Order: sequence, then structure tokens, then C-alpha cells
Amino acid sequence: MTTVLRNKESKLVARISAAVPSAGVRATWTGVRLGIGDDAAMFAARPGFDVVVSSDLFLEDAHFTARIHPPESVGYKSLARAVSDLSAMGAEPGYFLLNLALPPAKTGAWLTGFARGLGVAARRAHILLIGGDLARSRTVSIAITVIGYTRAGRAVRRSGARPGDLIYVSGRLGAARLGLEILSKHQGASAAARLLLAPHLYPPLRLDLGEWIAREKFASAMMDISDGLSIDLSRLCEASNVGAVIDAERVPRAAISPQWRRRLHLGPDASLEFALHGGDDYELVMTVPPHRAQKLRRAPSRVALTCIGKITRDRRILLVDANGRTRPLEPKGWDHFSRHD
Amino acid sequence: MTTVLRNKESKLVARISAAVPSAGVRATWTGVRLGIGDDAAMFAARPGFDVVVSSDLFLEDAHFTARIHPPESVGYKSLARAVSDLSAMGAEPGYFLLNLALPPAKTGAWLTGFARGLGVAARRAHILLIGGDLARSRTVSIAITVIGYTRAGRAVRRSGARPGDLIYVSGRLGAARLGLEILSKHQGASAAARLLLAPHLYPPLRLDLGEWIAREKFASAMMDISDGLSIDLSRLCEASNVGAVIDAERVPRAAISPQWRRRLHLGPDASLEFALHGGDDYELVMTVPPHRAQKLRRAPSRVALTCIGKITRDRRILLVDANGRTRPLEPKGWDHFSRHD
Repeated sequence: MTTVLRNKESKLVARISAAVPSAGVRATWTGVRLGIGDDAAMFAARPGFDVVVSSDLFLEDAHFTARIHPPESVGYKSLARAVSDLSAMGAEPGYFLLNLALPPAKTGAWLTGFARGLGVAARRAHILLIGGDLARSRTVSIAITVIGYTRAGRAVRRSGARPGDLIYVSGRLGAARLGLEILSKHQGASAAARLLLAPHLYPPLRLDLGEWIAREKFASAMMDISDGLSIDLSRLCEASNVGAVIDAERVPRAAISPQWRRRLHLGPDASLEFALHGGDDYELVMTVPPHRAQKLRRAPSRVALTCIGKITRDRRILLVDANGRTRPLEPKGWDHFSRHD
Repeated sequence: MTTVLRNKESKLVARISAAVPSAGVRATWTGVRLGIGDDAAMFAARPGFDVVVSSDLFLEDAHFTARIHPPESVGYKSLARAVSDLSAMGAEPGYFLLNLALPPAKTGAWLTGFARGLGVAARRAHILLIGGDLARSRTVSIAITVIGYTRAGRAVRRSGARPGDLIYVSGRLGAARLGLEILSKHQGASAAARLLLAPHLYPPLRLDLGEWIAREKFASAMMDISDGLSIDLSRLCEASNVGAVIDAERVPRAAISPQWRRRLHLGPDASLEFALHGGDDYELVMTVPPHRAQKLRRAPSRVALTCIGKITRDRRILLVDANGRTRPLEPKGWDHFSRHD
């Protein structure tokens, strides 16, 4: 990014920087040696800490639709999605870089809304914009790189789950999918409906929870639920060479009123289906050795953690339903190259 | 990125990882704590070093055209462009993350070529793929984040140029633009023509030179020439609050044979125009206090450094032509939001 204000590209950079917590070349923010406006950004290494880095795409027509998603949500969610990977490692957020390609028609009000939403997420995450790139394109594409820290040896990986570990999830699952259904089908929604949209448009950040889990060594393995519990849990199990049994009754799920069930033409299993396969929740799934489960009493109080099952030696992933019947839990979440091919 | 091989997205990740120097979750590469396959990548902080990070877009129809650019070049150049920002800081390369969105039709032979080109650039740069994201989209969009190191306090910024400093550039300028002209207009080119395409399709990496400049404290300011000498020099001068006088005769430029001049309908000033405004050269421009210029004798021998002018207190940027006439040098390089609006 450049600070040369004589050209349009740089004016756009200046507008984004003004709306988002950011560091310029003369910044003296803790740790930042060089922010927006040189060839690269630079920050000091923290002795005793590892650097955690993750990069995520957020694309028009894949991750959002301009017709139904307000720019504020696009800005917020693009960063929330990236930051969620820091939560999943138990990392403390530090900096981010924004790559934004957009059509000239979206450089006015749309960009203002986008930057506002991005700023809200950045302030909530305590993360600082230090660089990136801008270009024009036919549709909006966003790529965000987030950088954080963990104390050496404290990051929580996907690969540490062991047979007998308990499986916990944070929050309630399926709320994002319910919000998407309402948003897609009922645009002129009431104020009550708009409340139901919030988990989809402005998902929660679980950074404090992730950091607590890493600090307390609560979990043996952890990841975020971005593509859906069924597919994300299968990834965690694959990385750990284990299986799992999930108790369907215990999966915390977003309530769906009879009225919305009717309006959206949803079957009786919708709330469980959304919770298992909906995706976009950005909650955390983790495995906990039984003797550590008592630490739960000291967990940050605002987020519920619910035990939903157990890790097994047998590598299958099974779901036990309300009647005690067991069936394989198919990973049906989001895979960009399998869904529509 | 995930290593779950049961779905298509992950098979694509595996194909890319196989073609490019990369670290997986069980890697024990120096410094890497966690590579591809978890929520985030992780590397150890190096005491006494700063971390340098830069992120760049490389988009179909903005930075390349599928019709004329082979996938090998797209892979190579997308990384070369990002790595060039590390050269510009004098940083030592470490790791990179790849965000790649592409249509399903390009997941076959095109992706194989792309990964091959990316691998060539990564091996030349000694940089390791540690993560990223994949998605489908209508056109190809690539965002690459590169991470490197400099000894604390040794990075070369844009803002250090002082009146009286000499201005140097590496290599020859305008060769990339000449290659683009030939490629756009003469696709069934001869072997001799294909040689002229190389600087455009596979630009040089100046990492060794950049590191030497930082180590020897040779330059007071530096940046890479990605958008064109005229615009990039204006950015360096703006960041340093100075001006410059450039001697047109001394600007090292790609030779254009009378034959190509005719075939491409180029005027007599084409080679100078390409050198000043062409862009995409990925050479370095730097300012050097006169008393340090003698260090040049010890510079890495393979790359020519040419003095093309001097930094001035007067903030204008002037060009002196062959007849000794002086005119303002307009910044006419690449600006994504000014060119076609």
C-alpha cells in the first residue's frame, strides 16, 4: 500500500485506513516497526512467542452475495472469518493485511460501509491493519492475512485429540445458517427477524475464549467451526487419527420458532441439520481430557461450552440420536470444489 | 488449508504442496512450527530480527490475461511480485501463504502449470509455502502473503532519501513492457522473440542484491519498481520529502532492434518511455549517500547498478534529456483506479 495521495488508488487506501485501527509508516504502536505506506510492513519478534499466521479468502458469489449482504457485514465477516483461525490456535491477535479487489462502482458508498464493518471487527478483535494491496476487478474479492502470537509451545493444534477425550463446542450452532435462510427468502424482514440475522451477518469472535483455552492447557486439540461441525470435526479427527461419537441431543442449537419453521418450509430436523452441517458459525470445537474438564468452572463466563460427545479409538464418526440409534455422521459441510461439480 | 484428502478441495491443496517447497503439519523445517493442514501456520520468532510481511494481489484481467499468459508464468510472477517487496526492504525470505480462487475448468492442466511456475519461483527465492486458502470463482484471483526477516534496524525504507544522495537502479528497465508488447501482438513468436518475452513472463528476483544493500547499509532509501520508475520514484520522493533530477541518457534500458521497432509500430522514444513508465520490471531503485558509493565495488557481481541521477531538496521530479533540456517527469505508471476511469 502506498500513501501517495495524488492518485485515486491511494485515496481509497487513505479512506480505509481512516475507518480501521491501522498503523502508518510513522507509527510507534507496540511492536509495529513499519505500517501502511512502504513496500512491506514490519514488526518486532517477541522473544518466547511463536508467530501465528493465517490467510483467508472472502469472495463475492462464494462467501457473500452483493444483493443480500450489506457492505458492513462483508467488511466485518471477512475479518471475523480470518481472525477465527487465530482463536482456533488460542493465539493473541496482532496485525492484519487486507487485499481488496473491487469494481469502480463499489468505491463509493459500498467501500465506506465495508470499511465501517471492517473497523468494528478490528476494534473488537484488537487487531491492527498494517498493509495490503488494492486492485480493480469485476467482482469483489477479499483476502485477509492475520498475524498473532502464542507463547512457544502453547498453541492448540488439530492433531492432539486422544481416545476418551470429551468433545466440547462453544455457543450455539446453526444460527448462522438460519440467518442465511431468512436473509435469502425474506428481505423486508421485521425487527424481530433482523435479530435472527445477526449471527449470520456479524458472527461472534471467540478470541478471549481461545486464548483462555491455550493459556490453561484446557484442550488437547481445537479448531474453529467455519465449514460445519460435521466436516470440521472429521478434519480434527483425521489430523488426530481418532474417531468420535456425538450425542445429537446434546448439540447446542439455535432455536427455530414454529412460525419461522413454517415460513421457511423447514422439516422437524432442521435445527439439528443446521447445527451439524450449516457452517459459518465461527464457534470452536475442542477435545478435553476428562481430568481437565473441571477447569471449566474458571472459563470466561460469557460463552457457554457444551460437551457433545467423546473421542474414540475407532476412526469412524458416529451420531447417536434421541432414540439411542447410532448412524455414521457424514461430513456434509462446505467444500468449494465438491458441492456443485 | 486442510490435509483431509477425502474431498476435492484438499486434493488440490495436495497437488500444489507437492509441486512447491512447502511445510506440512509435521514439518521440522528450521523455524516452522506448523505448516499446511491446521487452522493457521506458525513459526518461531528470531531474536534480534524484525519480521517483514507483505501481501499482493495478482488477478486475471488486471495483472495477467489467460489468453496470452501461460499458467507457468502466472504462478511464477504472482510469487515474484510479492517477493519483490521483500527485496525492496533488504529482507531475507522465509515463508509464504497462497490464496487461490479459480474456476473448476482451471483445476486440471492449468493448475498443474501454475503450481510448476510457482515452485520454480519459490525454489529460486528459497521461500517455503506454509498455508493459505482455496475457493472457486469465475476468474482466477491470487493473493500471496510473503514473510521475511531483517536484522533489527537494518530494513531499508522509502523514507530515508536526502538531498545530494545518488539514485541507482538495478538491471535494465522497460524489458518487461517490451515483452508484453510482443506477447500481445505476436503470439506465434519465433525462438528469438521468446527470449525477449522472458523478462515479462519470468522477471528476475533481486533478493540477494536487496539483502546485500541492507547488510552493507549501502542505500538510504529503496523500493522496487513494480508500477514503473516514474511513479515509484515519485512515491519514494514523497515518502522522503525530497525531489529528484534524472538524467535520461543514463537510464539503463532494454534495447529494441529496428526490426521489432517496425513490427510493433514503436516511435524513436519507445525504449526510454518503456524504461520510465513501463512497469512490471521488479528491479530496485535506491538512493545512496555519495560517500557510500565506493562500496559498489563489493556489490554482488551479477547485477548491474547504474547511477541515473540525484536527489534534490526541491520536491519536483525532473528529467534532463539528451540535449540538456529539463522537463518535469510525470508519474505515468500503473494505478489501478486511475487508468481507465
